[in-house]
Amino acid sequence: MTLHVDVDRLMNRIDELGRIGAVLGPNGERGCARLALTDADRAGRDLVVAWMRDLGLVVEIDEIGNVFATRPGTEPDLAPVMTGSHIDTVPTGGRFDGNLGVLAGLEAVETLLAAGVETRRGVTVAFFTDEEGARFPPDMLGSLVYVGGLPLEEALDIAAVDDGARVGDELQRIGYAGARPVGALFPHAFVELHIEQGPILEDEGVTIGVVEGVQGISWTELILTGRSAHAGTTPMRLRRDPLLAASRIVDGVRAIADEIGGDQVATVGRFEPHPNLVNVVAQSVTLTIDLRNTDETVLQEAERRFADLVGAVCAGEGVTAERRTLARFEPVEFDPSMVDRVEAAARALGHSTRRMASGAGHDAQMLARVCPTAMIFTPSIDGLSHNIAEDTHPADVAAGADTLLHVLLACANS
Amino acid sequence: MTLHVDVDRLMNRIDELGRIGAVLGPNGERGCARLALTDADRAGRDLVVAWMRDLGLVVEIDEIGNVFATRPGTEPDLAPVMTGSHIDTVPTGGRFDGNLGVLAGLEAVETLLAAGVETRRGVTVAFFTDEEGARFPPDMLGSLVYVGGLPLEEALDIAAVDDGARVGDELQRIGYAGARPVGALFPHAFVELHIEQGPILEDEGVTIGVVEGVQGISWTELILTGRSAHAGTTPMRLRRDPLLAASRIVDGVRAIADEIGGDQVATVGRFEPHPNLVNVVAQSVTLTIDLRNTDETVLQEAERRFADLVGAVCAGEGVTAERRTLARFEPVEFDPSMVDRVEAAARALGHSTRRMASGAGHDAQMLARVCPTAMIFTPSIDGLSHNIAEDTHPADVAAGADTLLHVLLACANS
Repeated sequence: MTLHVDVDRLMNRIDELGRIGAVLGPNGERGCARLALTDADRAGRDLVVAWMRDLGLVVEIDEIGNVFATRPGTEPDLAPVMTGSHIDTVPTGGRFDGNLGVLAGLEAVETLLAAGVETRRGVTVAFFTDEEGARFPPDMLGSLVYVGGLPLEEALDIAAVDDGARVGDELQRIGYAGARPVGALFPHAFVELHIEQGPILEDEGVTIGVVEGVQGISWTELILTGRSAHAGTTPMRLRRDPLLAASRIVDGVRAIADEIGGDQVATVGRFEPHPNLVNVVAQSVTLTIDLRNTDETVLQEAERRFADLVGAVCAGEGVTAERRTLARFEPVEFDPSMVDRVEAAARALGHSTRRMASGAGHDAQMLARVCPTAMIFTPSIDGLSHNIAEDTHPADVAAGADTLLHVLLACANS
Repeated sequence: MTLHVDVDRLMNRIDELGRIGAVLGPNGERGCARLALTDADRAGRDLVVAWMRDLGLVVEIDEIGNVFATRPGTEPDLAPVMTGSHIDTVPTGGRFDGNLGVLAGLEAVETLLAAGVETRRGVTVAFFTDEEGARFPPDMLGSLVYVGGLPLEEALDIAAVDDGARVGDELQRIGYAGARPVGALFPHAFVELHIEQGPILEDEGVTIGVVEGVQGISWTELILTGRSAHAGTTPMRLRRDPLLAASRIVDGVRAIADEIGGDQVATVGRFEPHPNLVNVVAQSVTLTIDLRNTDETVLQEAERRFADLVGAVCAGEGVTAERRTLARFEPVEFDPSMVDRVEAAARALGHSTRRMASGAGHDAQMLARVCPTAMIFTPSIDGLSHNIAEDTHPADVAAGADTLLHVLLACANS
């Protein structure tokens, strides 16, 4: 008989954790605001750690506040298999982002315990500090430090964007400055269940996203400067309008995405003219360009086309451009055998699957630096995330958690 | 011998008035902030009224605070000829906008007095309340009420955008709630000297702008609504991006101006995406479109093309549009014989001239409703106005004031 998680128990935990820092919407939406290392985050951590202890798991906290709860295996010399995600949220977040992965991991372990199923390797359920980066940039901070991507001392010294408090002080304050050295032990393998945070699975009617990797990201800030002028008294031929140039760049950025096709996405999300008045030709416009692709070569091609576009548009309107790189990450490829294992587990459970890349960053991309890693996506209703209306159907939650359970089982016995 | 103004005396008065509410720039710019009916406006009014009284002029203040200073003519039964403008400024204004017209009028009268030149009609120098509308919308308030375009009681009840104070109360407070009924007496003719506030005269090396009228204005606010989405997880085919649609409208608005040509100007000056974040496809964008033309038929054609543009762009991106008219004024045509008189006076003085439309609004367009009216423009350095760097060369000030003097002389003896 195939093992299944108890989806009601899992949904109840998602709801209970979501009540800490709850943000209620006008139409009954149940969102969540638990920014990293705040009092709300402490309350959420305390609740999840209590659940972990109730199951008899061995709970360890490391120096950056990451929490690891392990059910030991029958062969203690073998490295455990790990799952996990994060429980911090953005200021107007949902109940599922991150939380689903942590609580589904806990549910998988409870299912094994309840069924008396033992595994050769231990199974560890982790939650990582400050994945969102909303209070302490950069995002994925806890997992980055865990895998050695940022020195601990630097991370502890990061100041909060809201109140300037330091990571190290806040960890002490909320009681999560642990003793376990960061990077003390890496798992045999890592798998993370997460909501898709996008519309693809819902749009295609697919239940399980088999995540092959994470898109590379290129963020550029552009400041275009022209000549401010009176909208009534300045003839068109004497204008150097940075708002017009910025608009042509927005249109050209869409054309780049369309021409490259495939997974390429390209977005202008910020657009700020100065002085931003109805009857004044702007002096300058600040805009940001977000380019993403799973293929580093193609991403570089998109960047080249973007640079050409900016040059041509600015020359045409007599506008100057200053550029600044805000972020640049190469694509991450997950371990092919782990990806195959996710696909096989989902299909064995009878779920439809689709291979895809993650458009957003996740703790799993950090873990991929130190062990074979993969991710499982479940559909997001209307593709919404970082939004109080973020939601996933319980049947999809069950499918995702069952898939996680069986991937963990397979890894823990390998 | 041809009569000339004393440009040093005029420049000294411009400087002295400009010291009240002075705003100094980092590079020595001498700007001005005297918003209507503030303490600074009172101080400016008191200074100009003192100058008027020093010249022995008959000073009257009407119920909306417009000030009229008259040098009587030799035939008291004839209506006087009037010149004037305003002395209020925007928060970061210059010393010339409005002030030049009032002080050049005073200088013309002083020149007549000094030369012992009498005129059949009286000559009145006026300044009108709250031309800028920066503190009490709408702009040109005092002249609008004077010509009967807005009932006095309504105007007195307008609240300040900064502190909510009412026009009527502020007039009382600063001592400029006058007794002369608004619209009690209209002049025989009106001529206003003003800086161009645009780059055309400087660009073409012309000294005097002969203003034939004021452009019609059509201001529209557009709110485009699409679907907010994650920039990384949302494929291009599933996007409904209002920032892209807004950008295409900006580009299309420029194309409308280019296609219509002539005097047509078209500007998008405000552009505000929500939520305006680097990694989020916007939910909505608010933008404004400013269309101006001297020909009402052509302006309507521009509005039709704009409506078609919005429809086509929004349909293409699956975005909805809400439209609101923020302002709509038909073009104003000045009196052809007055315009001829301005041109003849400038040419007789040996100045280069160019017929043109005013792209900005002026008190003269209100006066044009009640008497033959025209305007004289002098060049603005770099086309700047509503800017602390606003400036005009003294030689151009002299040319403008001399032209004004001779137009007033001709009208006052007709």
